[in-house]
Amino acid sequence: MRSVLNKAKYKYLQFMRIYLDNSATTPVDPEVLEAMLPYFHDQFGNPSSVHSWGQEGAKTILGARDQVARFLGCKTEEVVFTSCATEANNLALKGVIYSYREKTGKKGHLITSQIEHKAILKPAKSLEKQGYKVTYLSVNSEGIIKLPDLEKAITDDTVLCSIMYANSETGAIEPIREIGKIIKKINRRRANKIIVHTDAAQAVQYLDCNVDRLHVDLITIAGHKVYAPKGIGALYIRKGTPFKPLQEGGSQEYGLRAGTENVPYIVAIAKALELVSDNKAKIHKKLTALRDRLILEILKKIPESQLNGPKGDSRLPNNVNFSFPGAEGESIVLALDMQGIAVSTGSACTSQDLKPSHVLTAMGLSPEVAHGSIRITLSKYTTKEEIDQLIALLPDIVKRFRKMAPKM
Amino acid sequence: MRSVLNKAKYKYLQFMRIYLDNSATTPVDPEVLEAMLPYFHDQFGNPSSVHSWGQEGAKTILGARDQVARFLGCKTEEVVFTSCATEANNLALKGVIYSYREKTGKKGHLITSQIEHKAILKPAKSLEKQGYKVTYLSVNSEGIIKLPDLEKAITDDTVLCSIMYANSETGAIEPIREIGKIIKKINRRRANKIIVHTDAAQAVQYLDCNVDRLHVDLITIAGHKVYAPKGIGALYIRKGTPFKPLQEGGSQEYGLRAGTENVPYIVAIAKALELVSDNKAKIHKKLTALRDRLILEILKKIPESQLNGPKGDSRLPNNVNFSFPGAEGESIVLALDMQGIAVSTGSACTSQDLKPSHVLTAMGLSPEVAHGSIRITLSKYTTKEEIDQLIALLPDIVKRFRKMAPKM
Repeated sequence: MRSVLNKAKYKYLQFMRIYLDNSATTPVDPEVLEAMLPYFHDQFGNPSSVHSWGQEGAKTILGARDQVARFLGCKTEEVVFTSCATEANNLALKGVIYSYREKTGKKGHLITSQIEHKAILKPAKSLEKQGYKVTYLSVNSEGIIKLPDLEKAITDDTVLCSIMYANSETGAIEPIREIGKIIKKINRRRANKIIVHTDAAQAVQYLDCNVDRLHVDLITIAGHKVYAPKGIGALYIRKGTPFKPLQEGGSQEYGLRAGTENVPYIVAIAKALELVSDNKAKIHKKLTALRDRLILEILKKIPESQLNGPKGDSRLPNNVNFSFPGAEGESIVLALDMQGIAVSTGSACTSQDLKPSHVLTAMGLSPEVAHGSIRITLSKYTTKEEIDQLIALLPDIVKRFRKMAPKM
Repeated sequence: MRSVLNKAKYKYLQFMRIYLDNSATTPVDPEVLEAMLPYFHDQFGNPSSVHSWGQEGAKTILGARDQVARFLGCKTEEVVFTSCATEANNLALKGVIYSYREKTGKKGHLITSQIEHKAILKPAKSLEKQGYKVTYLSVNSEGIIKLPDLEKAITDDTVLCSIMYANSETGAIEPIREIGKIIKKINRRRANKIIVHTDAAQAVQYLDCNVDRLHVDLITIAGHKVYAPKGIGALYIRKGTPFKPLQEGGSQEYGLRAGTENVPYIVAIAKALELVSDNKAKIHKKLTALRDRLILEILKKIPESQLNGPKGDSRLPNNVNFSFPGAEGESIVLALDMQGIAVSTGSACTSQDLKPSHVLTAMGLSPEVAHGSIRITLSKYTTKEEIDQLIALLPDIVKRFRKMAPKM
């Protein structure tokens, strides 16, 4: 494969590396880094300590928690910091399902979708193995769940409904507010209320995350998708939600998540969310324009290219996902990498798998077409020049791989 | 209480704050901070990504894992990074116990001790509540478990023995190597091998942590007790140990702990352990001298002061724990804090409790004497001048509180 690459060009381009895999992770914003630095060596107290070093730490965390609560439109004590979105998702699912089991002795029913991140699908499979019932809602050809299916899936035993806010592979935005409203309405007639969770890891930067407007009881957020470091997340837990902690020990995080608090990263995620609030509209507009330019140019310059996922407002402004039948996604990713450009075939967390994307196949794509897909995800740092550079290189790469592919 | 404090002195002293609560947490070493800084903004790739940003991240983690493995004398793939020691302890206990349950259908038996950290005791209580059997070994008056008790506690159903390496409150060093040897010998005659775990969070800096010399199968370590940040830990899992992950999602950490890797902190803990290895003997000697000086001076200058925990080599070189009957530990901590000195009454994770220390009461101290205890824990940064400053202030503070105390 290396033979198709122009080595001289690569040598030149390695000095201008272009990162377009921002749904996998984002760099830490220098302002975020600056905000957290004092907490490593100077204000390093353990927030549980009684003395002033500790109390400074506790005050710092409280301030950060307030900031996150303002972002979500919730109470300070409804924010639980975790080590990542995966932990928050595990906590959301198992925390609610095990609590219901403990209270009622019954193994409850979970509703989720076929296109969730592995951090939902794996715990769901694991619960199924333990005898809990799980429904995986299917999606339409744009990757969006169908609300009538959700209503039909609800049973007397339904305890939790967990649907992602936006899909990491296709950028498809799920109708969370409508889901919240439907379940709220159904809950009026039920004794055992259905809890609504959404994994908003990919959505936080672009979509409204006000918990009351969304009518949700639990929200997962991740630091490293919004220019804070990898290793911090949070779970919003609406007051009164029946819940059981998983990580047990000290009484940190209101007894819901034991472990000495990661003060610098807690400061970081709070600062990152503040920056998101400050610049949301501007970045949304900029990225929508770049995204649409990229989509149009690819459709124009690469024959038989298929856009995966929805168009326009139902899609995250930073997400582009294309299939190029006849060319392997993985090969395109590696070829672009040799040219200094980072894109991906799908979620980083499943990138080691050889199977075609579970998201794309759930949307009805054939395994062959799903294998030919690449995901390009922009950040607030992405420039028009970077997009143009990709547009300049991609058609040629796809063409060469198509020539090399065995005829089907 | 504020009335006993000399405010003018406080104003002067706040410019020379003395931190002697290093078992609660340590500041990040500037060398550690420097090592991790490039991974926030420059080398920020998601280690699961296929492109070179991701592969750099994967390589970075592999290097760090190698370093930790060298420290523990184990294989690279036996090191699992976690978000803290609490997570590692939960994972050790539940990972082994649930795996046994899954394989045999039986609820196994866990042996631990009465003086463990809450990150062991709470999961143990939680397992008990779920119907698992747990034995909590008692300790002698120095806070050390008795080996014959351990042998007597073992049953056919025993799955796991988890005893801490060194106690965070008293610095008592538990006979882990002997425990390891005893169980290894017993295992020769058993089909269902007993797994040995030790929480080495407090021990890592001072004691031999070679897993083969200790004959252990699982070891918990924590970054923030060895000058790395809060928010990183690791669990050593000996190859072949029956184990079940708790946090499910992507295939990170050999499938044993899902979630995007916290690259900067993984680099940090590896660097911190390298520094520990480099300076172990020198720091051990320095702190032993400071500790013994502090103990002698307190015994000399404060009447009726009682050293809690063992003397000499059975005690961590950085730990001093005293009871001053007639004076409340909490009041002493606050008074010293007003003078710019941080010490504690015990573990930070239990400092919000009003109950006397479970460690000291397990050693046979009356609740009154246990309430009168303070813990002073040194770091590699602690100086003779700081110790002398504490010695200059402490006798007067204890004397004043004893005068104020209601006569019993």
